[in-house]
Amino acid sequence: MNDDYIARSAQLALLLEVSAYPKPGNVDRTHDFTDTSYEHFIASSVAVYPVLREAAAGVLGVGELIRAGVEESMTWQRGGNTHFGALLLLMPLTMAAGACERNDMQEILSKAAELMRNTGVDDAIEVYKAFSTGKVKVQRDVPEFDVMAEDSVNELREKGLSLYDVLTISASYDLISRELVGGFDKTFACAEQLNNFADTGDINEAVSHAYLWLLSETEDTFVKMGFGAKTSRYVQERAKAIVTGGYELNEIEEFDEELIRDGINPGSTADIIAAALFIAILDGLRF
Amino acid sequence: MNDDYIARSAQLALLLEVSAYPKPGNVDRTHDFTDTSYEHFIASSVAVYPVLREAAAGVLGVGELIRAGVEESMTWQRGGNTHFGALLLLMPLTMAAGACERNDMQEILSKAAELMRNTGVDDAIEVYKAFSTGKVKVQRDVPEFDVMAEDSVNELREKGLSLYDVLTISASYDLISRELVGGFDKTFACAEQLNNFADTGDINEAVSHAYLWLLSETEDTFVKMGFGAKTSRYVQERAKAIVTGGYELNEIEEFDEELIRDGINPGSTADIIAAALFIAILDGLRF
Repeated sequence: MNDDYIARSAQLALLLEVSAYPKPGNVDRTHDFTDTSYEHFIASSVAVYPVLREAAAGVLGVGELIRAGVEESMTWQRGGNTHFGALLLLMPLTMAAGACERNDMQEILSKAAELMRNTGVDDAIEVYKAFSTGKVKVQRDVPEFDVMAEDSVNELREKGLSLYDVLTISASYDLISRELVGGFDKTFACAEQLNNFADTGDINEAVSHAYLWLLSETEDTFVKMGFGAKTSRYVQERAKAIVTGGYELNEIEEFDEELIRDGINPGSTADIIAAALFIAILDGLRF
Repeated sequence: MNDDYIARSAQLALLLEVSAYPKPGNVDRTHDFTDTSYEHFIASSVAVYPVLREAAAGVLGVGELIRAGVEESMTWQRGGNTHFGALLLLMPLTMAAGACERNDMQEILSKAAELMRNTGVDDAIEVYKAFSTGKVKVQRDVPEFDVMAEDSVNELREKGLSLYDVLTISASYDLISRELVGGFDKTFACAEQLNNFADTGDINEAVSHAYLWLLSETEDTFVKMGFGAKTSRYVQERAKAIVTGGYELNEIEEFDEELIRDGINPGSTADIIAAALFIAILDGLRF
């Protein structure tokens, strides 16, 4: 696979994820957030292309790539942070796809996990800087490591914490961190779901269903952080009912309206779906 | 401007054009054609990125670029011809942007016109081959030059017709050809409209209004070819009434429903809007 092939697969993943609807609580082609619109996500997906190609080419480290991706994504649109979580996942995956000789889903995910284990302090510092650029909402009350604290860079250096170390700390409460240090289990599972759903021939429905499936499997970090454990469990239970009920469109739409009305945004779930789409597209998903 | 900057501007133009709605009669984020969906246009926009970058780098001729673009666009999705007309316009414009020292709209359009005048027989042959790949609907009853005829390549060689010569023939009835040999007048005018409309801050509305404005200014080739001069004039008159009436949303939606119901697709108008978006984005259009 050449670098442009890999970069296009990752870019298409970002675009299909944000376009898919209904996707309860998230931006889709028919729903904007107050400050961040669907078009902001499109421009961001366009903006990151050269960084995705660099990731596939293996010329930069994970941390540098994540920072460069976040910076590019915010240079081309005025909607603020669009793809922070998705880029956290996609950069090591894209690097791994570029580094693997065979186009094998399992091999790529293993390689990405290895790349994460081999990250250093510099990677952690770059991601810290990207956090500041993206003004990403983070859990402020975790004493071990506060990525928003001004002396974090010094602290990272003094303690010699790699990106892997930092994410291992946040993995206790953050779904994306858990993927990055835990071998991308959910990403893999969702890629398999996407490949199954896509057999129906409707790519939009495949993404919408995979999103609901993941929401039914795991509590979303954004929802838990912003609305507490009770709401987070409620969202998961509603998703479970929809999945076991056979993905009834009117139920999904009702759930979507409810979450949008209450401002509940399962952002981490959407990020993992973008990463899973990338893996599924590399694995041959076409429409 | 580096090649990736230019290629991203062109790609963003394709994505914003197809996403914008309402856009009477055309594919948008809420309307598919029977065999060609919104997602097919997204995948096609992703697919052509490396060819757009090559165009900006100036390493291939106009004809080769158009053919490569059409082929890539159809490799990544199964919806058939998506961007033939848009790529006809975007390839010389992207080449011109890469070749100009200054980022000046007028200079880029003049350079693109010059590139078209300097095309050769080989460019014509490449575009002929792209036509076959794209299975593009063309007017079959024009005796001077039938691009679908099997002996066209030989005829082009024998007569020594350049791409410019061929397009000069088709310019009598085809809006895209007229742009390519006439100095991109409509593209320039639409880019100015886009820049004005975008001052409202709503990029979707800006594209929708520019589309209606162009539809009110010029008869669409696809509509005229497929439905005759009477329908074509009717579509133009309806668009004029909407423009002079101040772009009332419910009138635009009603017009959209009517054209979709009757299968009337002003495809050439959409192609020129994509080219105009590229020029406007290079000129600083942001959102």
